[in-house]
Amino acid sequence: MSELTSVSQAQALIAEHMPSFGSERVPLDEAVGRVLRQAVHAEHDHPPFDRVMMDGIAIRWSATMPRRLRVVGAQMAGMRRQTLPSGNDCLEITTGAMLPEGADSVIPIEQLRRDGEDYVLSDDCAPVAGQFIHRRAADCAQGSLLLSPGMRLGPAEMALLAANGVANVEVAVMPSIAIVSTGDELVDVGEALGEGQIRRSNDSAVRAALRLDGLERVVMEHIVDDEAVTSQRIAELLERHDVLLLSGGVSMGQRDYVPAALAAQGVRKVFHRIAQKPGKPMWFGIGPRGQAVFALPGNPVSALVCATRYARPALRAAQGVPAPAPEWVCLDSDVDVNPSLASFVPARVQSDAQGRLMAYPVPSKTSGDFSSLPRTQGFVQLPPGQGKAAAGSVAAFYRW
Amino acid sequence: MSELTSVSQAQALIAEHMPSFGSERVPLDEAVGRVLRQAVHAEHDHPPFDRVMMDGIAIRWSATMPRRLRVVGAQMAGMRRQTLPSGNDCLEITTGAMLPEGADSVIPIEQLRRDGEDYVLSDDCAPVAGQFIHRRAADCAQGSLLLSPGMRLGPAEMALLAANGVANVEVAVMPSIAIVSTGDELVDVGEALGEGQIRRSNDSAVRAALRLDGLERVVMEHIVDDEAVTSQRIAELLERHDVLLLSGGVSMGQRDYVPAALAAQGVRKVFHRIAQKPGKPMWFGIGPRGQAVFALPGNPVSALVCATRYARPALRAAQGVPAPAPEWVCLDSDVDVNPSLASFVPARVQSDAQGRLMAYPVPSKTSGDFSSLPRTQGFVQLPPGQGKAAAGSVAAFYRW
Repeated sequence: MSELTSVSQAQALIAEHMPSFGSERVPLDEAVGRVLRQAVHAEHDHPPFDRVMMDGIAIRWSATMPRRLRVVGAQMAGMRRQTLPSGNDCLEITTGAMLPEGADSVIPIEQLRRDGEDYVLSDDCAPVAGQFIHRRAADCAQGSLLLSPGMRLGPAEMALLAANGVANVEVAVMPSIAIVSTGDELVDVGEALGEGQIRRSNDSAVRAALRLDGLERVVMEHIVDDEAVTSQRIAELLERHDVLLLSGGVSMGQRDYVPAALAAQGVRKVFHRIAQKPGKPMWFGIGPRGQAVFALPGNPVSALVCATRYARPALRAAQGVPAPAPEWVCLDSDVDVNPSLASFVPARVQSDAQGRLMAYPVPSKTSGDFSSLPRTQGFVQLPPGQGKAAAGSVAAFYRW
Repeated sequence: MSELTSVSQAQALIAEHMPSFGSERVPLDEAVGRVLRQAVHAEHDHPPFDRVMMDGIAIRWSATMPRRLRVVGAQMAGMRRQTLPSGNDCLEITTGAMLPEGADSVIPIEQLRRDGEDYVLSDDCAPVAGQFIHRRAADCAQGSLLLSPGMRLGPAEMALLAANGVANVEVAVMPSIAIVSTGDELVDVGEALGEGQIRRSNDSAVRAALRLDGLERVVMEHIVDDEAVTSQRIAELLERHDVLLLSGGVSMGQRDYVPAALAAQGVRKVFHRIAQKPGKPMWFGIGPRGQAVFALPGNPVSALVCATRYARPALRAAQGVPAPAPEWVCLDSDVDVNPSLASFVPARVQSDAQGRLMAYPVPSKTSGDFSSLPRTQGFVQLPPGQGKAAAGSVAAFYRW
């Protein structure tokens, strides 16, 4: 029986061995949710011109300006720059328009009355020089660094890419992932359940977990307990995919043909068994082309915990996403810990009136008991120790 | 000028007027990320039988049992239930198999030595009656409530659906949404930028924001400043879509043809202008078929704040998702507030060593300044007041 690897060792070993998936250029509208792999600088000043902030008229301000102004034209949003001939004139303007040449201030429509060819300032209108102009480069200057490699492209990032003319975006290649279940006892969701059988479910959980990180190049495979079939399918999957996520089938069992099939294809074991509960049987290896092979334990809670704690962060890092700061939560109640194993305890979290994120542990009855997981948002990680982690103590939290 | 609506009034008015989008049945593998609209009960006991937890042998335990047992067969995972003839015999078993008839305990392979037709218990093997059996219904009994309407289908929920034979799932219909930008000054990301023009970006931001809630039935439209075109396009969009998300174009401007076009199509204004900064010009109305029309302000920060604070929660609620508990954060520094308007201040958040979620405000220079938003995870909402919200005080946080 191999030595147990610690949680932090396992994490470091995976990080050390993970391949990079490279980058590719995709059209902007396909980039949403992907990981940026280029720096993005301001294409132009923002705003690119002195920009009018209100609908109304553009004027040339002076302390002695007239309160009746002749309309000599219009400067609408999107128009080339017009010219205001004199301080007795005005141009109609709309929000987003360029400030006309010769104008320096804007009076909003609400403070004006139209009278034939003129606008008359209302009695309470006391314009200030330069008012309602959003100055060129006030937000940022051309060339400013806006986005850095490793950022996930969410709403704000997509807006900046669009605003700065990045029609094709360099993003991390999405790895091709095979989620593989093994075992004769596993039946598809749509099939009748025979004696001794259960339904496949880890593959659905793992697929949904990967999707939270935008990983959608995923196939799901089921391999029956047959040496020849296993060998052939594993060889094919390693050829076609960058990552294999197995669930079950990498243990000591006489019908576990997966370890031999992986070894025959040149997949090298990096570690097997982590000092944690649940999820101890976790296995990780690397194929000859750098394929990452995660063999998750077969029990549902263990499989989802390991996918969340190891596979997802590794796949994010391999796409260039920096490791996030840990999320700390405060335990609401005492939690039993294991003297020699790290404990992963599912928990519901909710912030309290002090802004603390409180964790309410929802322990599973067994590592097969996933019926209570929908009431949780993730799990706390508690280091090995004597007795209990006390209510009020702080722990790292990992979200499903 | 209409009265300002408060933030909570706006929220309540939207909730009161939002339509429901109904439900539909989809295959399980298309349900991930969707909103459940049915209750799900356990199809069978979990586990459905007394389940073996280790690879090894199944035995009939007694205080005086022999330490050498004759192998008379095998009970592999997925097999129908076998029978163990006597206390002198054993059956080879694998993890996940049914406990054979006549057997009551399991001895793991690690504690055994094979000798011809027999297994011999290793010297330190001291079996306990009933060991390594995961009892039928230990996790949950047939008929137990597992999932309730309104849950978002993430990893744990998908696993439970699969494990309980829900091959077709009742989920909320995803509304069909049109994101509409208006204005002659707006140019596509791929086009050359002329004088007085800026690029469209709010539509990309809003699309990415909706995608965070799994809303992908989205089209993006741009309408130029032309009365006839606006009228025709608005009529078509209202016919085809359940939700319109406009950005810009619903203000006092003489070229804003959208309000007239909406009114002509029977869209009734519910409110216009909210007592908040940024995002004051926000408009909301309801069409004759119950279509929800959100007119977001045109400035990028305002548009994204309003989409996040109003449109996303409303669309979640309309799909049956219960309102989440507020997320409270602790302000790291003093923040200026407005005496009469609620302030939405973008902030970076990070949890501290006490498990508190600290908010580091990143104020925008103007409501057009979205260049700093990628450094934030959302915004705090601060009520109107005198002076400042003090460092250390607690505020509600809304994530992009």
